[in-house]
Amino acid sequence: MDLRKLLKPRSVAIVGASEKAGFGGDTTRNYLKFSKNLDHLYFVNPGRDEIFGRRSYHSLLEIEEDVDLVILCTPQKTIIPLLQDAARKKCGGAVVFASGYSETGEEGRIRQEELVEEANRLGIAVMGPNCAGFANFIDGIFAYAFLVEERDRSGNIGMVSQSGQIVLGGLDSSVMGFSHVISSGNSCNVKVEDYLEFLVEDDDTKVVAAYIEGVTKPAQLAATFQKAAQKKKPVVILKIGRSGKSQELAASHTGSLSGADKVLRAIFKRYGVIEAGDLEELMGIANAFSWLAELPRGKRCVFMNVSGGEAGVTADLSEEYKIPLADYKPETREYLQTLVPVYGSVNNPFDMTAEIGYNVPVMCKAIRAISADDQVDAICIAYTITPEVWDVTMFRMVQAVSIVREEPGIKPIFWIPFIEHSRHPESARMLKEAGVPLLPCGRYGFSILHQVLEFAAFKYEKIEAAIPDCHPAQSYGMSEFESLSFLEKQGVPIPPQAVAASHEEAIQAAKTLGYPLSVKIHSADIQHKSDVGGVKLNIQNDEELCRAFDEIMENCSKHAPGARLSGVLLKPMLKPGVEMIIGVNNDRDFGPMIMVGMGGVFVELFKDVQLAPAPLTQKQAEKMIQELRAYPLLNGYRGNPVCDKEALADLLVRISEMAARNKNVIKELDINPVFVTEDGVAIADALLLVYGDEKER
Amino acid sequence: MDLRKLLKPRSVAIVGASEKAGFGGDTTRNYLKFSKNLDHLYFVNPGRDEIFGRRSYHSLLEIEEDVDLVILCTPQKTIIPLLQDAARKKCGGAVVFASGYSETGEEGRIRQEELVEEANRLGIAVMGPNCAGFANFIDGIFAYAFLVEERDRSGNIGMVSQSGQIVLGGLDSSVMGFSHVISSGNSCNVKVEDYLEFLVEDDDTKVVAAYIEGVTKPAQLAATFQKAAQKKKPVVILKIGRSGKSQELAASHTGSLSGADKVLRAIFKRYGVIEAGDLEELMGIANAFSWLAELPRGKRCVFMNVSGGEAGVTADLSEEYKIPLADYKPETREYLQTLVPVYGSVNNPFDMTAEIGYNVPVMCKAIRAISADDQVDAICIAYTITPEVWDVTMFRMVQAVSIVREEPGIKPIFWIPFIEHSRHPESARMLKEAGVPLLPCGRYGFSILHQVLEFAAFKYEKIEAAIPDCHPAQSYGMSEFESLSFLEKQGVPIPPQAVAASHEEAIQAAKTLGYPLSVKIHSADIQHKSDVGGVKLNIQNDEELCRAFDEIMENCSKHAPGARLSGVLLKPMLKPGVEMIIGVNNDRDFGPMIMVGMGGVFVELFKDVQLAPAPLTQKQAEKMIQELRAYPLLNGYRGNPVCDKEALADLLVRISEMAARNKNVIKELDINPVFVTEDGVAIADALLLVYGDEKER
Repeated sequence: MDLRKLLKPRSVAIVGASEKAGFGGDTTRNYLKFSKNLDHLYFVNPGRDEIFGRRSYHSLLEIEEDVDLVILCTPQKTIIPLLQDAARKKCGGAVVFASGYSETGEEGRIRQEELVEEANRLGIAVMGPNCAGFANFIDGIFAYAFLVEERDRSGNIGMVSQSGQIVLGGLDSSVMGFSHVISSGNSCNVKVEDYLEFLVEDDDTKVVAAYIEGVTKPAQLAATFQKAAQKKKPVVILKIGRSGKSQELAASHTGSLSGADKVLRAIFKRYGVIEAGDLEELMGIANAFSWLAELPRGKRCVFMNVSGGEAGVTADLSEEYKIPLADYKPETREYLQTLVPVYGSVNNPFDMTAEIGYNVPVMCKAIRAISADDQVDAICIAYTITPEVWDVTMFRMVQAVSIVREEPGIKPIFWIPFIEHSRHPESARMLKEAGVPLLPCGRYGFSILHQVLEFAAFKYEKIEAAIPDCHPAQSYGMSEFESLSFLEKQGVPIPPQAVAASHEEAIQAAKTLGYPLSVKIHSADIQHKSDVGGVKLNIQNDEELCRAFDEIMENCSKHAPGARLSGVLLKPMLKPGVEMIIGVNNDRDFGPMIMVGMGGVFVELFKDVQLAPAPLTQKQAEKMIQELRAYPLLNGYRGNPVCDKEALADLLVRISEMAARNKNVIKELDINPVFVTEDGVAIADALLLVYGDEKER
Repeated sequence: MDLRKLLKPRSVAIVGASEKAGFGGDTTRNYLKFSKNLDHLYFVNPGRDEIFGRRSYHSLLEIEEDVDLVILCTPQKTIIPLLQDAARKKCGGAVVFASGYSETGEEGRIRQEELVEEANRLGIAVMGPNCAGFANFIDGIFAYAFLVEERDRSGNIGMVSQSGQIVLGGLDSSVMGFSHVISSGNSCNVKVEDYLEFLVEDDDTKVVAAYIEGVTKPAQLAATFQKAAQKKKPVVILKIGRSGKSQELAASHTGSLSGADKVLRAIFKRYGVIEAGDLEELMGIANAFSWLAELPRGKRCVFMNVSGGEAGVTADLSEEYKIPLADYKPETREYLQTLVPVYGSVNNPFDMTAEIGYNVPVMCKAIRAISADDQVDAICIAYTITPEVWDVTMFRMVQAVSIVREEPGIKPIFWIPFIEHSRHPESARMLKEAGVPLLPCGRYGFSILHQVLEFAAFKYEKIEAAIPDCHPAQSYGMSEFESLSFLEKQGVPIPPQAVAASHEEAIQAAKTLGYPLSVKIHSADIQHKSDVGGVKLNIQNDEELCRAFDEIMENCSKHAPGARLSGVLLKPMLKPGVEMIIGVNNDRDFGPMIMVGMGGVFVELFKDVQLAPAPLTQKQAEKMIQELRAYPLLNGYRGNPVCDKEALADLLVRISEMAARNKNVIKELDINPVFVTEDGVAIADALLLVYGDEKER
């Protein structure tokens, strides 16, 4: 859908314009106060001839020229007739503030469907319903319903939010500058994915910030994220739904289903989309990118403090937020030592002492020397900026930063204050002009610095998403033998196996496989083989094999009456190793997601799993394994042999490719366990769930 | 040491008083500007007759009356002669700003020792050296060297810090009100523990906040914490040293050793001392207690929002910060439903909609109803307070809160904004007057609310600390048999065991113990018995026993040549269960610390251990076990039997009591593993390290 008439209209009509408080009046006042050009603005109100000294039309149809955008401040029941009028004025966009739609239950949901149908028929892109509107600071269009303080908010952050209040939060922030802010509300025929795509493509937007509750166009979302990753344009998203309670609230708020939360987070990670945990983080991260002159080339940071105590706090926080501390080259250290008093010591975090912090030329020298060190990627000044300059050290440090940033080759600089404050406006302005983000205080600042450094270091590997074409309702499970055979045919390495329906077949198979063997019931109807006595391990010879065969058949006849017994499955006993599990779950939005974790209690108790969309590159697979907290167990833990991690990564890649190829076939795959040893990997058991009707196999 | 002349002086002399910038001038200006009573203030400067229009004395000895406190703004080499003069004026306290002491290395350390000696000889309590001074807002004495903005800072927070800059951070905060702020610097003959004790005892101080780098008087610290716990006076501490880097910095900053960081955190926990992670948390927590009208009776919270989006964020953050959401009683829910529009739903977090938030009387009704619900312990409004009132909802909500707080029986109310800001001063004032803490934004606010609720719920169980009287340099290890026998004599239950030096003794012992048995080498010289072939398990009969005996003796002669072999240790095979480890480590400051964790990789990889000072009460032991992340494994995980956790807690208590009794005897104890089953606990192995010279046994 074309959003140009909606977001960049040439002519605008406010329907329900008014001088009174409320949606109509507040929108009118906001528009007059904050918009750049009022030449093609029209007020419509059947009861008024004039509003704030401007002509008021009694109907859209009275307006002489065509109208690109209508802003409807009127109640729900008036909306469809107004859209019909608007269409006759060649309107292509509408903002609908009215509530009473999908957020109110079944009846409202039906009303919203009617609205979507009519808007589509008329070719009008609708923002809302149940939204707060938008502001386009590039073209100067302020179609937003909540009153805000008067001040320049133009900049390069594009923000879209399913909550109008959260847009207001952004507008309330004293530091943020926007290209566009959009309150998408219930997302009728224009979805949050459409706005995201617009903002990612928009050249006036340097960084995209979004608050989302759910996803309705997964393929478009993935494609938009991919586009952003390729352009290296940062996208920051606050997605509620980490807790069950917030998932519940999202459903009742804008009627969206939050979907599988973990899946969406894995998608974010794939494309380097930055996740924010709350509003302050959302805004702080967006603002960091907005102000930052250029991205750091690496993650190694030098922190500069003017207090031993604050340097200590900085050390603790930089470790907590995984910000690597740069090691100075010896010549840098020696030079800095000449700048501090004799008792001072050059460290990182670097307690500069007042000798440096208080002295603009010396501070400039220190920053230049640190910046010239090729072991340093970024500099962060950690010092509180107070609302007024009573502590001159602060202002001198700001001046020094401002001076050096004019010079070529200076590395990116960040600033983190220690306490929450409004900041001294002149200092903030100087830092902004110098391209030095003034981050929020303390933990927020360190967390945001970490996120910016991670984004800068992120390398997107292009890989096609495997979004399924269909979502069949029915599925059925395969037996272990069938599951393993399926994997094998798809190029996934599996240990040798054979099925046998008689003693003779079993003995014959044992000749090829070699003892010792494991023997399990072969039946598509029995999932939990041990529970029905269907497993015998460590079988050493023909005699034990025949006995095992008989006992298994007898046990299963008794404990699983009615199950079709097709004989037994024979496999050589595997060399035990570190037990891992690998799973595939075909998400209805984003397709097959691959999961890896350490077997046993690790997965369940410590939630130590990694999840990513299939397919994977070798590097992505390696990273998933390395990011497991139990990774040291694979890597020569306590004198154990180092496991063949490359083989494990390779197995993950093959499974992921198989899952992507079979995105319309495989519903679930559970490989549990796979043994990893110094010699390689061995899948011990697998269960496959495939789409389709079992009766039609 | 008596601190009254230092912190509450009747007469004060500033030595080195001046009109120029620098320590002397800034201190003089600060004193004149912020102190209440200048009647007994004297300036001393040998080169001046008048300073800021007041007489300047050329020497302390010229002053007519006695001087309680001298503030020395002069360099290091003048300090001891000035203290000697001061002593002749019956001085009892001195503030020493000068640096050049223990923070500068060995020579400085010696200078500081001389200072301590002289100050003690003269009976003068010295603040510093290398400090920034103090302010006593109760008596109006401002002996602080850094300039600050002019504003009323009096209140009920008592703050002490080893960093002067961090005191300045507190003074910079726009919300905090203090009884005392103290920059302790290098802590010469008055330690941070002395100031803490003063503040805990001081009736003008409602909450104590401290920044500390190290501990030098552990017994006094523990006693002070105990006093605070008994008075239920909150103590909030920011202690750097979580990272190795910050431990290093602390050593070079004020010359203090940070000690065993984890031990100190366990001590905090024992006494309900609240730990802050950075400055904003330190100040935010202190300020929450400072403003709060009364402590909540429990932890169940209702959150009130005016936005679905913000309610979702609130839900996620309340889960993340472990704040239990209250369930309304049905009548509360029904009543609230009458206050919201039809489409609104009553939930927690409660999106009140503008119908309530915008309407003062209705908002009052909602708060009253929620407050009257006995399933609710506290209320938290989560809404941004902007610097100006352009969003009237905000101000109306503040008004409503302010009105209801006047009424009897209203539960404690907190306020968390979503973004960092300076706050509308009038709203902040109204909330402070109403006893409603205005917390810092977002994550900080939720984390602080959690800490306040935890403190309110904390019940201190009085128990005597076991701080050792001596720290012997030598120690030696006991054999497993000796270790277990020691435990048994001390009332710790251990499984039956016997030692045997011959086949005959072994067979005899087996008769009593019963097969199957484990057989291990009995030698004080062999710690890792398996490594030398010194262990045989699951021995079934006399014949196997004799063979095991011979093999073990042979293996150990071969692989541990020279070790004294005293025969073998026999024990019945234990029923396997969940493997735990229990350890004791005798901290040189705080005595025996007891550790419990799940055996194997859990302890090392997931750091899933709990640490506490010995002795423990049964409740404390139970809590330690419950707080293990692997706790579900003991509690009937995946259909396994529920383990006897009471027996495990009882074992912990007995070991802790033994460790406390033997605080001058035991250096270390390592019990690994202890098996926990549904029937109880069984110690499988133990190694004891005791103080003393092995040769003198």
